[in-house]
Amino acid sequence: MLYENKYIKIEIEKSQIPWLKIFTQIPYKEFSSCDLKTKEEILKTLDIIEETMLDFFKPEKINIASFGNYLPLLHFHIMARFKNDNFFPEPMWGVKQRENELKLPSFKEFYKILLAKLD
Amino acid sequence: MLYENKYIKIEIEKSQIPWLKIFTQIPYKEFSSCDLKTKEEILKTLDIIEETMLDFFKPEKINIASFGNYLPLLHFHIMARFKNDNFFPEPMWGVKQRENELKLPSFKEFYKILLAKLD
Repeated sequence: MLYENKYIKIEIEKSQIPWLKIFTQIPYKEFSSCDLKTKEEILKTLDIIEETMLDFFKPEKINIASFGNYLPLLHFHIMARFKNDNFFPEPMWGVKQRENELKLPSFKEFYKILLAKLD
Repeated sequence: MLYENKYIKIEIEKSQIPWLKIFTQIPYKEFSSCDLKTKEEILKTLDIIEETMLDFFKPEKINIASFGNYLPLLHFHIMARFKNDNFFPEPMWGVKQRENELKLPSFKEFYKILLAKLD
């Protein structure tokens, strides 16, 4: 767990790439069923994470996804993608394209900057 | 092309499942770079599509995704998923689980209801 407030919590997905997950505090199944405040908080948080990822890692593209097919609990994945990451240009759930070691700036430093922006 | 207004357009992805794509009229690369009105329009449209899919098809789960790794142009996929569709519970970009024919209500009727709600 990286961060939480009254409406949402952010978890880190262990991966080669910067990858965070936003969960709602109230266990909703679908995005459209969220109360307005939770919806707004998800969007604000997606925005802050995306901008911080773009600024700090200079990725090729940001990927956003919400599936929840295994566990029917609304959550959003937000991922910074790089041309030479193991799955690019496929989604992280697609076919592995290569076996590569990425040289990225410190994830810890990124979390620190992000937390300052979320407060 | 199913629908368009000043800010967004909706396209149909040909698939076994109900699957729509929302593009922005202005070619943005990332969600966070959208102007506020376009952002609001995407969210409103996602909401209407999701609710109409849930109501009409009674799917197991709605999936939402925004990648754009092949073509760096912001767009959102919105998919109605069913327990017996060919990829469930994997994302539509994952490993095929089975070869199944789905018996779903008429897609044409769904588009008609959706268009009435979008107007």
